[in-house]
Amino acid sequence: MCRWLAYMGEPLRASTIVLDAKHSIVAQSLDSPLGAETVNGDGFGFGWYPSDATPTTEPAVFHSIEPAWNNQNLREITRAVESPLFFTHVRAASGPPIQQTNCHPFRYENWMFMHNGAIASWPELRRDLTVAIDPSLYPQVLGTTDSEVLFHLALTLGLRDDPIKAIGQAIRTVETVGHAHNVQFPWQGTVAVSDGATMWAFRYSTSGRTRSLFHSTDVPTLREMYPTVERLATFSDNAKVVVSEPLNDLPGVFVEVPESTAVTLDGDGYRHQPFLAA
Amino acid sequence: MCRWLAYMGEPLRASTIVLDAKHSIVAQSLDSPLGAETVNGDGFGFGWYPSDATPTTEPAVFHSIEPAWNNQNLREITRAVESPLFFTHVRAASGPPIQQTNCHPFRYENWMFMHNGAIASWPELRRDLTVAIDPSLYPQVLGTTDSEVLFHLALTLGLRDDPIKAIGQAIRTVETVGHAHNVQFPWQGTVAVSDGATMWAFRYSTSGRTRSLFHSTDVPTLREMYPTVERLATFSDNAKVVVSEPLNDLPGVFVEVPESTAVTLDGDGYRHQPFLAA
Amino acid sequence: MCRWLAYMGEPLRASTIVLDAKHSIVAQSLDSPLGAETVNGDGFGFGWYPSDATPTTEPAVFHSIEPAWNNQNLREITRAVESPLFFTHVRAASGPPIQQTNCHPFRYENWMFMHNGAIASWPELRRDLTVAIDPSLYPQVLGTTDSEVLFHLALTLGLRDDPIKAIGQAIRTVETVGHAHNVQFPWQGTVAVSDGATMWAFRYSTSGRTRSLFHSTDVPTLREMYPTVERLATFSDNAKVVVSEPLNDLPGVFVEVPESTAVTLDGDGYRHQPFLAA
Amino acid sequence: MCRWLAYMGEPLRASTIVLDAKHSIVAQSLDSPLGAETVNGDGFGFGWYPSDATPTTEPAVFHSIEPAWNNQNLREITRAVESPLFFTHVRAASGPPIQQTNCHPFRYENWMFMHNGAIASWPELRRDLTVAIDPSLYPQVLGTTDSEVLFHLALTLGLRDDPIKAIGQAIRTVETVGHAHNVQFPWQGTVAVSDGATMWAFRYSTSGRTRSLFHSTDVPTLREMYPTVERLATFSDNAKVVVSEPLNDLPGVFVEVPESTAVTLDGDGYRHQPFLAA
Repeated sequence: MCRWLAYMGEPLRASTIVLDAKHSIVAQSLDSPLGAETVNGDGFGFGWYPSDATPTTEPAVFHSIEPAWNNQNLREITRAVESPLFFTHVRAASGPPIQQTNCHPFRYENWMFMHNGAIASWPELRRDLTVAIDPSLYPQVLGTTDSEVLFHLALTLGLRDDPIKAIGQAIRTVETVGHAHNVQFPWQGTVAVSDGATMWAFRYSTSGRTRSLFHSTDVPTLREMYPTVERLATFSDNAKVVVSEPLNDLPGVFVEVPESTAVTLDGDGYRHQPFLAA
Repeated sequence: MCRWLAYMGEPLRASTIVLDAKHSIVAQSLDSPLGAETVNGDGFGFGWYPSDATPTTEPAVFHSIEPAWNNQNLREITRAVESPLFFTHVRAASGPPIQQTNCHPFRYENWMFMHNGAIASWPELRRDLTVAIDPSLYPQVLGTTDSEVLFHLALTLGLRDDPIKAIGQAIRTVETVGHAHNVQFPWQGTVAVSDGATMWAFRYSTSGRTRSLFHSTDVPTLREMYPTVERLATFSDNAKVVVSEPLNDLPGVFVEVPESTAVTLDGDGYRHQPFLAA
Repeated sequence: MCRWLAYMGEPLRASTIVLDAKHSIVAQSLDSPLGAETVNGDGFGFGWYPSDATPTTEPAVFHSIEPAWNNQNLREITRAVESPLFFTHVRAASGPPIQQTNCHPFRYENWMFMHNGAIASWPELRRDLTVAIDPSLYPQVLGTTDSEVLFHLALTLGLRDDPIKAIGQAIRTVETVGHAHNVQFPWQGTVAVSDGATMWAFRYSTSGRTRSLFHSTDVPTLREMYPTVERLATFSDNAKVVVSEPLNDLPGVFVEVPESTAVTLDGDGYRHQPFLAA
Repeated sequence: MCRWLAYMGEPLRASTIVLDAKHSIVAQSLDSPLGAETVNGDGFGFGWYPSDATPTTEPAVFHSIEPAWNNQNLREITRAVESPLFFTHVRAASGPPIQQTNCHPFRYENWMFMHNGAIASWPELRRDLTVAIDPSLYPQVLGTTDSEVLFHLALTLGLRDDPIKAIGQAIRTVETVGHAHNVQFPWQGTVAVSDGATMWAFRYSTSGRTRSLFHSTDVPTLREMYPTVERLATFSDNAKVVVSEPLNDLPGVFVEVPESTAVTLDGDGYRHQPFLAA
């Protein structure tokens, strides 16, 4: 349904992994071997926090309805931007409308969110789930995607206080509403969310068969594994990538995130915990 | 807030009035002397019924987020299309998002709708008014405009059975919700709607000071008034244009539609009637 | 490098083959099994002659830089247009710029042209070939593609008088200029061109290994072959389709055009002749 | 024909003058009191050097075919970027094509260029002037504007060694070619060009009646003139703006650049010199 990539670590020129890896996210837009669709050409987004972000700094977000693979502006911007925390998303829509307000990442104040997956029977469930958004947040909903509604549901349910709990409750809301509409497997997806200091990633679906999700092995270990790979010098010791599928074919560089798992990334590294497990 | 044009009569090459008049709707996109804004460059739309339309034929709709004045596709399409009933709309948005789903005309089955004006305090009223749309129609709402919501409210309130009554009730709903939110003058606007056989146009605002609206004088009278104007030969005797402002500077060719008026256009000509008068 | 489709026959609703076939040209934009690239998502074009075209009628051309597969305007327009002769093209660019002036079909007066393939080492050859265009035609060149230059070279070399000869000489010019730049195989491609009354299609490459090209079997024969295929009732007896790859999987419906062949289609049916054969 | 703005000084958040001034360049896109056209809605561009640019650093360039006034991406990017030297341009095209390759600024290696004005009878002169570009630079010409050709002519004529001389010779070439085609006043315009360290601005036209051009008064003087204007604290002492028309209505803040003048801006401040004077 889409592919996404999130980076966290020392400020990195974004093009390093957005454009220049073998299976970069831009390469995945044209051909993603592990994707539900091989083509993710229905727009894209790139959001980034600046190097001098404070706890209230809003990330910048660039959206386009064009395919990523030949988009010149994406090349310009990711070559110019160095950022300690950025998200990139390439979209495969199930149908129109193809519009910037349907492009990820979504933003609210200092928070950024993106999603790969789907709410089943979305046109049928859309109204009930949209109405469940706090009325004060409702004016921020500008597109038609299930993803944007999930984000605002999570904001409604306390994302800013406890992201793992709020994303969990938002998904449970989707499941409750879906089951009320006789939808068997309402939720499917991987999610990334950040407040600019910490990043959380989630892999969960009602059916237990979620789109792929990987995170990078820690860089010092990689340097030991691959002492001759010069490209590793580009990355800081604390660089971490979470991505829909591996950016290269080197064994061991990317590790699959298990089903029903929430991942927390911050200065202390990765921490996995069960998420909505049965 | 926008400018629009509607044509009804014998099939006419649309470019005749969309492109080729002195103050054509495309000219008005760049410079509309009577508009609330002089520039209407935030996208446009062109919708048309075919010459062989049956009572259930859906009109075709072409939307673009680019300004009309230099849009090559609009030129191509309006030069190619001959239609007995078409709508054109150029948008001046109060702000983003600029997206095709915010471009008029809107369509539902064989119905087409467009609007120039605004619901005051729209971000605040949007949720209450959107929730008032029939849940079965809700999935058709794809943009963020007040106009699209008004159309779906009117559909909810019986547009297909009694358009004048339904548009009136939809506007009254806007006023009721607006007043509940302490908005003094909730509705402002001119509206055109058609089922493919008849066209209705409306001019009304809560404050009694509505955007301009004109209709053309009947063509045989114009031929008597201007016997040497060759361009009039282009139009059939029953050709009628309703438009936000006159397409030319010839006195008497366009007549202002009064405030609080509904206009019905069909094979029998124009008929005015009071609409939501105090 | 691209995929294209050309139709000629009684006026046909364009969506019938642009949208609604199993391997319609829109389906090929997302997944073309026989294409050099499987994805043709770098814009598209649709050009059509009206049913009442005279020998000097210009075709209308709609271009977009978005992928065809989710483009709502393409759906609207091809469902509305009935045409006796239309071209559709989906582009796979070797790189930016993605812009409407690089979208096929190209038009000059009543002539329309499209191409799948490439001039090798195009950035190097572009200047010499562009300068070879007649100065009076030069202002019409608005994009950066090899295809547009080939079309204007053919116009320079007499396309309007003898299309097969002029396309042949234009390709020979490409080969001569290419060889002077030490390019071994300068030309590769299939071409369609029409004046509104007759259509010509070409398959040729310097190396003798050209992109695929097919034409439909004549409809009365197809009706005998597939008496139960109701869809065939949609087509007139003289309907002909030339297309980069078959629109369906029915054996015998599409026949490959041989290498080094020019095809002429008019009221008398298909005629093949050798084209630039060694 | 267009409006542009160039900034040089300590790194400045670009939105400060691109978005947030009374007559910011984005405000000028919708309404430019001194412009040849009041609306400059045919696309825009923003190009910037990074704070840590070396003499060979390429600037980044963001282009869009949409009007600047409601473009969300321009807001995002100019709020995120701090730069010691940036160009912004809003386009008023004399006609299609509206495409990114026709948006300023243009770039070649570490050089950036933009232009407001026109070459008269451009369709007629385009071929001769394009052919005068060095063949090694020809592949870089991707659009259809007179501006892009003037830039590449200047590169051909030694821009990188002596910008004032090369721009002058390029304009003289335009005049020579124009006069050979019986065009009385071939060149009209203001130009900005930079290598990342120095900026040059030019005002000249064959007729001696050039589009408006202004530069800012030096900031310490402004602080004395307007001790209570808090906004001035935003700017460094060496901040300099060159712009098509003043960004505010404060007397003395912007000074008109005379006709037939070249301006050099660097660490030593402004220097004017006669340019192509009769």
